[in-house]
Amino acid sequence: MVAERLDGRACAAEVESTLAARIMALKTKGVEPHLAVIIVGEDPASKVYVSAKQSACERLGIKSTKYSLVSDVGKEELIKLVQTLNADIDVHGILIQSPLPSGMDEIGLTELVDPSKDVDGFHPHNLGRLVQGRTDGLLPCTPSGIIRMLEWAGAKLAGARAVVIGRSRVVGMPLSLMLAARGCDATVSIVHSKTEDIASICRDADILVAAVGSPGLVKSDWVKSGAVVIDVGVNRIPDSNKERGWSLAGDVDPEVSEKASMLSPVPGGVGPMTIAMLMTNTVSSAEQY
Amino acid sequence: MVAERLDGRACAAEVESTLAARIMALKTKGVEPHLAVIIVGEDPASKVYVSAKQSACERLGIKSTKYSLVSDVGKEELIKLVQTLNADIDVHGILIQSPLPSGMDEIGLTELVDPSKDVDGFHPHNLGRLVQGRTDGLLPCTPSGIIRMLEWAGAKLAGARAVVIGRSRVVGMPLSLMLAARGCDATVSIVHSKTEDIASICRDADILVAAVGSPGLVKSDWVKSGAVVIDVGVNRIPDSNKERGWSLAGDVDPEVSEKASMLSPVPGGVGPMTIAMLMTNTVSSAEQY
Repeated sequence: MVAERLDGRACAAEVESTLAARIMALKTKGVEPHLAVIIVGEDPASKVYVSAKQSACERLGIKSTKYSLVSDVGKEELIKLVQTLNADIDVHGILIQSPLPSGMDEIGLTELVDPSKDVDGFHPHNLGRLVQGRTDGLLPCTPSGIIRMLEWAGAKLAGARAVVIGRSRVVGMPLSLMLAARGCDATVSIVHSKTEDIASICRDADILVAAVGSPGLVKSDWVKSGAVVIDVGVNRIPDSNKERGWSLAGDVDPEVSEKASMLSPVPGGVGPMTIAMLMTNTVSSAEQY
Repeated sequence: MVAERLDGRACAAEVESTLAARIMALKTKGVEPHLAVIIVGEDPASKVYVSAKQSACERLGIKSTKYSLVSDVGKEELIKLVQTLNADIDVHGILIQSPLPSGMDEIGLTELVDPSKDVDGFHPHNLGRLVQGRTDGLLPCTPSGIIRMLEWAGAKLAGARAVVIGRSRVVGMPLSLMLAARGCDATVSIVHSKTEDIASICRDADILVAAVGSPGLVKSDWVKSGAVVIDVGVNRIPDSNKERGWSLAGDVDPEVSEKASMLSPVPGGVGPMTIAMLMTNTVSSAEQY
């Protein structure tokens, strides 16, 4: 078996196309959806992410404003900026790009964003709704993108065994809740670095999601034949053949494509979906105004 | 094997005894911990719960005030009461007793309570902290009571396979997050009504928690020999031998005690722990003032 490639770009394009009419309707009412992006410091990955998000805004006719702050910006100044954007009725979404310079309290800053403008879906108020089984609010973008892509691909979720590798606040934990919630109805296992015999648990999975940041962790013999595998890992590995000196690798070993029925690769799988769901959240937030 | 009985009353008494010094220290500073309990209507179970909570307050020297509202109280009046209690600096904890009269929006009312006084731990803000892996805030009482009881009993959590039956916002979902979080480090599976072959998944569990409300659901052949089993079910089943016409049954068939190494029974297991953790939250909240 050679796995069908789960084409995140194609799915994201479909999601974006459904947003066009909603954005048009907003503009007819005089509302221009507006995303504010805060970037702190000079992290190259942060710059790439912000640039991709702003390109998506431009493509869709969503206004975006970038606020670039120096890496040693005072906490007061950052707080003041977020408060100003919270109060600005022409701003519908606010995101603080991760990673922040080391030492900055990323979780604490997230809490400053008004939950109704928290288009990253990272505010505890929005995450808590997932614990309540409510999936109608501002959802974290990568988990909701994964679920949208699984549905788009026609993967059976109800009653399926899903195994999520990794317990991060950004992917593993919220995705587990969303997969287990009514509507998705998957049977979910969360595994992590302290799990014993992780391979055998993964082999039970109809849907296997790797979100741990360990290049090539998931080997072919971890995967049940015919499983749907989603790779969320974004790892830079040294590569002397590339001028930049590194290449991108996921958490899933490429040989898994011989075993899985569908595989969402890195790059080109979850990444574009994350951006498409950010755009969706921004439009949803603007519709509340 | 006959399972050791996990004595929730004994564990709860230990938890309460550790609160005594903290309450004393608060009173020395002139702070009397104060829990406000709102009960709506005449539900007999609600009355029993409120009475048990007020008894615990009295036992520990925590002030409690009960607000009894008629079952057809206007939403405005209920909102106004919660707002008044939120603003009252002499009130440290507020809970709205469940179940509410049918048609009342329990989740919506929970969101009115100031998260810092949400001693039930049901506000999305407090639940969302669990998704972030933060277990230092106001934790939902039943899940935190279960974890405290497991630790008290010396059950191995790190690396253990835990299976949680039920995906409620009150027990199943938050408990799954807490068991999977750093510090507990269990490998967690959430199973529910849509799960296929639930018995075989349960048989993998070192720790099995039933929180679904289905009397006697968990049979002996669902349980691995030596597993730790926690029964959270509180079901009234008809019993003509009782004057009141019913008796209490858990979600776990009593025959499981022949198979498990430890069993938390109904009644006398999780129930007293829930109250002990409510008292803990009330004291913690008072300490923040």
